[in-house]
Amino acid sequence: MADKNIADKNIKVTIMPLGIEVKATRGEKLINVAYGQGLDVNALCGGKGTCGKCRARVVKGGISEYTENEKKLLSEEEMQQGYVLLCQQEATGDLTIELDGLNNGQKEFVPDKGAYAENITGNDPIVTKTFHQLTFPTVNDQISDLNRIIGDVPGKVALDLRLLSRVPVILRDGEYRVTSAIFNDTIIALEAGNTTSQLYGIAFDIGTTSVAGYLVDLHSCKVLKTAFAANKQRVHGADVISRINYTIENPNGLSEMKELVINTLDEIISKLLAGSGIPPEHIYIITLVGNTVMSHLLLGVNPLGIAFSPFVPVFAESITAAVDFLGLKTLLPAARFILLPNIAGYVGSDTVGVMLATKIYELSGNWLAVDIGTNGEVVLAAENRLLTCSTAAGPAFEGASISQGMRAEPGAIYKVAINDDVDIAVVGDQEPRGICGSGLVDAVSELVRLGVVRKNGRINSPKDCPMELPEKVRNRIKTRGNGLNTFVLVEGKNEVAITQKDISELQLAKGAIRAGVEILLDEAGIAELDGILLAGAFGSHLRPESLKGIGMLPDIDVTRIRPVGNAAGSGAIMALQSKEQLQIACDLPKRTEHIELSLHKKFQRQFVRGMSF
Amino acid sequence: MADKNIADKNIKVTIMPLGIEVKATRGEKLINVAYGQGLDVNALCGGKGTCGKCRARVVKGGISEYTENEKKLLSEEEMQQGYVLLCQQEATGDLTIELDGLNNGQKEFVPDKGAYAENITGNDPIVTKTFHQLTFPTVNDQISDLNRIIGDVPGKVALDLRLLSRVPVILRDGEYRVTSAIFNDTIIALEAGNTTSQLYGIAFDIGTTSVAGYLVDLHSCKVLKTAFAANKQRVHGADVISRINYTIENPNGLSEMKELVINTLDEIISKLLAGSGIPPEHIYIITLVGNTVMSHLLLGVNPLGIAFSPFVPVFAESITAAVDFLGLKTLLPAARFILLPNIAGYVGSDTVGVMLATKIYELSGNWLAVDIGTNGEVVLAAENRLLTCSTAAGPAFEGASISQGMRAEPGAIYKVAINDDVDIAVVGDQEPRGICGSGLVDAVSELVRLGVVRKNGRINSPKDCPMELPEKVRNRIKTRGNGLNTFVLVEGKNEVAITQKDISELQLAKGAIRAGVEILLDEAGIAELDGILLAGAFGSHLRPESLKGIGMLPDIDVTRIRPVGNAAGSGAIMALQSKEQLQIACDLPKRTEHIELSLHKKFQRQFVRGMSF
Repeated sequence: MADKNIADKNIKVTIMPLGIEVKATRGEKLINVAYGQGLDVNALCGGKGTCGKCRARVVKGGISEYTENEKKLLSEEEMQQGYVLLCQQEATGDLTIELDGLNNGQKEFVPDKGAYAENITGNDPIVTKTFHQLTFPTVNDQISDLNRIIGDVPGKVALDLRLLSRVPVILRDGEYRVTSAIFNDTIIALEAGNTTSQLYGIAFDIGTTSVAGYLVDLHSCKVLKTAFAANKQRVHGADVISRINYTIENPNGLSEMKELVINTLDEIISKLLAGSGIPPEHIYIITLVGNTVMSHLLLGVNPLGIAFSPFVPVFAESITAAVDFLGLKTLLPAARFILLPNIAGYVGSDTVGVMLATKIYELSGNWLAVDIGTNGEVVLAAENRLLTCSTAAGPAFEGASISQGMRAEPGAIYKVAINDDVDIAVVGDQEPRGICGSGLVDAVSELVRLGVVRKNGRINSPKDCPMELPEKVRNRIKTRGNGLNTFVLVEGKNEVAITQKDISELQLAKGAIRAGVEILLDEAGIAELDGILLAGAFGSHLRPESLKGIGMLPDIDVTRIRPVGNAAGSGAIMALQSKEQLQIACDLPKRTEHIELSLHKKFQRQFVRGMSF
Repeated sequence: MADKNIADKNIKVTIMPLGIEVKATRGEKLINVAYGQGLDVNALCGGKGTCGKCRARVVKGGISEYTENEKKLLSEEEMQQGYVLLCQQEATGDLTIELDGLNNGQKEFVPDKGAYAENITGNDPIVTKTFHQLTFPTVNDQISDLNRIIGDVPGKVALDLRLLSRVPVILRDGEYRVTSAIFNDTIIALEAGNTTSQLYGIAFDIGTTSVAGYLVDLHSCKVLKTAFAANKQRVHGADVISRINYTIENPNGLSEMKELVINTLDEIISKLLAGSGIPPEHIYIITLVGNTVMSHLLLGVNPLGIAFSPFVPVFAESITAAVDFLGLKTLLPAARFILLPNIAGYVGSDTVGVMLATKIYELSGNWLAVDIGTNGEVVLAAENRLLTCSTAAGPAFEGASISQGMRAEPGAIYKVAINDDVDIAVVGDQEPRGICGSGLVDAVSELVRLGVVRKNGRINSPKDCPMELPEKVRNRIKTRGNGLNTFVLVEGKNEVAITQKDISELQLAKGAIRAGVEILLDEAGIAELDGILLAGAFGSHLRPESLKGIGMLPDIDVTRIRPVGNAAGSGAIMALQSKEQLQIACDLPKRTEHIELSLHKKFQRQFVRGMSF
């Protein structure tokens, strides 16, 4: 993505179907040409040529020699049709590329990330405002401007030095009637006149894939508006390991990563404030949650230690500072941010947010909270203990390792029911072009129920399926050239099918989570649960029946499985609304036992057992 | 000083006797052309054309029309010879200027500013270092890097966030053996290995004219080196009022002023460290004193309120923060600065430094400390009270309002004794070309003693002088065209003389100080003093006899008048060496009563009385 001189950009790349014409440098990776236009091309592997998701067709102009990766991931037929992987091909002469359906160039699509509870009312917001009616100075009262203000605040406070140079201007403009905003015994804002009614904050949930922001009125404690954006770091890989790799392989990778997430936050702030009538200078505080790697990248801190054993983060504690430390462009430099604490290298402040929002730490009985993503974080509250672990579920639920997998974007099959035949629901109600995690879980759950897929994950040949299987369903089982069976969800030219390999990937993913759950239950000596809370956008879209159907969760009545939405974001909101909640969040890591699964002697056995349907 | 495009710089200005050739923009002020070369041209009035000190001769090329100011300050004869004021003339075509003797283009001359006591030993420096031998993390000990370090420090500390991103690098480099530098419960530096022996700080005294820096070893508490530089703000005026005016009249004046003093500090730091073997990253803390306007400009805070009644500063309290707030380029961003507290708009932290260094607050008896400059700050310690005031001495002592006045630079008459004839001593032992403050005080003191100058300041005509006045001295009295008498110190072509107006200026200056002293004595109800401490470079060079001789000080035995050198700088050093001393400094303003002379009903009477010799 190096921005060479304009003079060097002498290759014309036309991107269809958008019809964009771009100048590229000789040797520039085509995927970077697309990124340069802000196109959200899939690159789940971070441009390593291993996921095959950045497929596109060169319709005019030359193709460089195919790389080994391309030969592995593209079929003979596809290569004859001019398909390439954008991350593998370089611009060598003028050419026209046609983006694949999966890479349709849409700039933004973010899955729903509604907060668990948007109207929680606190009565002790972490920033307060005070109106000061000061006396004018005289030669008999030569006290400094600063002491005049501070002396009017009960208790001992300091002024943020960033404000000092503006003090005389504000006192003059307000004719010594001014309003202060106070956070942690520090005046972080000073305004002319009485502005006490204007007091806002923003809570952020920084996901590896997408970021959610919630604008909160700190008087009413209501969430006024919610906004989302794709995490701009996605251009460097879909998962935390790809992101860490990028920081290792690129000298400026760390600062690039920081800038990308900060730009994402700035974008969300702009969206939140647009049309709200709230100027950015009335946002005094932001709270943030995210996984531990996201927390590190946000602060420009090297997350390398998290990637390798012993998986040690640079910091885990809550970090509070002025937003100018982050480099946010939209807020006043003296506004504050609070990054909630992490628990371990793979159990981040997002999990703390889930614990806070679900109040799992004070629920009576034995409760499990599961936040399903590339890493599935599991929390168990039982017998007055809090246990947590992170399971390497892998990218299956996000569609990355699935042959026709995709995110829950328009065209994704997200619901599947199989009775006489297959019924599907598609995001955006359009022609299906792939399948997302919830669709996959639904489909496999149904196929297991109907006996098409065996306990060990094997797709039966049509003849090996139960007698009672409807004929239409049976006919969807196709035996491919490799001798393995495939189940076709959508027939015809734009076929969407589930392969034997897809099912194996799902088994690995759900097996990891199930193993984590079982180990926590074992550690706590618990056999029975009172309920399971499914956190996260993805978890909320999964049907409890299907999750149970594939054996990802322990045996429990489905009515006791409760989706709780984006509980991580809700936790960030609660920390904003209430000093008490913030304190609880900061204390939770100390109260929580982290189980390192990679070390656990029972993990391998539980993992193998957990893969079974 | 606008830096236009090179293409616009099509006028050639040659500066003699240095032989520098400069390209200038049409319309550019000649004084700015000289400043652009780093030449320290005298501009006591800040380029307003009122002090006449930036006189130079155009020896080739055209002169623009003389301005009203030039006509007022240059004689007919001088104009015929091509003399101009550099601040009044613009570059209109190629020309050669010859700098006047007073503006000889020397880049730096700073009066001696040796500290009062350079080897004060504290045993509680404000920054300490600790060596940590940490255990390596394992999967059974996944505590974060940050907590690993903090856990090894006794008591509760935090890490400066600026260091966070370097933590993993330092731990790896030092193989978990690291050294922390701690200030106020915050780790402000973290270094690989054991670096506890390297612990340094710098104390600064920011004068309106010159700035002094003292490099201190915080282990031995010894001052290792002293360095000086002219305050770069001098290009915008000699005194604080000119500096304030510059910030009023120029939209970027405030940030320019901040940058100029910061550049001065950076220059001094470079001088202090050059050849010392101490890298800049081993400077952990700096302390600073200066007058209140200097303090404001240092932080980029508008000092306007100090200029006008009721003379209120924006802040008076001590300010502590990381040096990146100042914008120093030479030190680590997380190093700390402490600006000592001010007492009032015209009694700054330099006076607090004087009080700290002289320990006047605990001397037994009644003591006066006087810091003589453009403002003469007076402190009286008497009867368990501390009183202070600032007197507007004006620029006479610095030579600005004196017809042949100059700073104590080479060529300045700095000592005068008159017996049979006049004896002078000249800075640099060269041809005299003007007179500095101490020379003027000496001369007038002698002339008063000999009856040449009357009590009311009038210079007698030769015939009105006492009979016993030696003939050679009598012959030096010349009556000029205006009917007023002048006393000639140096005869001949390069005459140096003291005019009647010079004596009036001195009377105003010393009268103001004397009035301040008398009012403090009156407030305290004190008739007799145990001693007088003369602080500041200038005060140290004045002969107590002469000060007494002109009646600037109350009647006291001259042996009880004690010069204490740059006590302000010493105070800054002591605050660096000792937490206890820093605390005393921070408490002094609260213990000190500030008397606002402009308000005082007796001021006018005392002032008139004080002007008498």
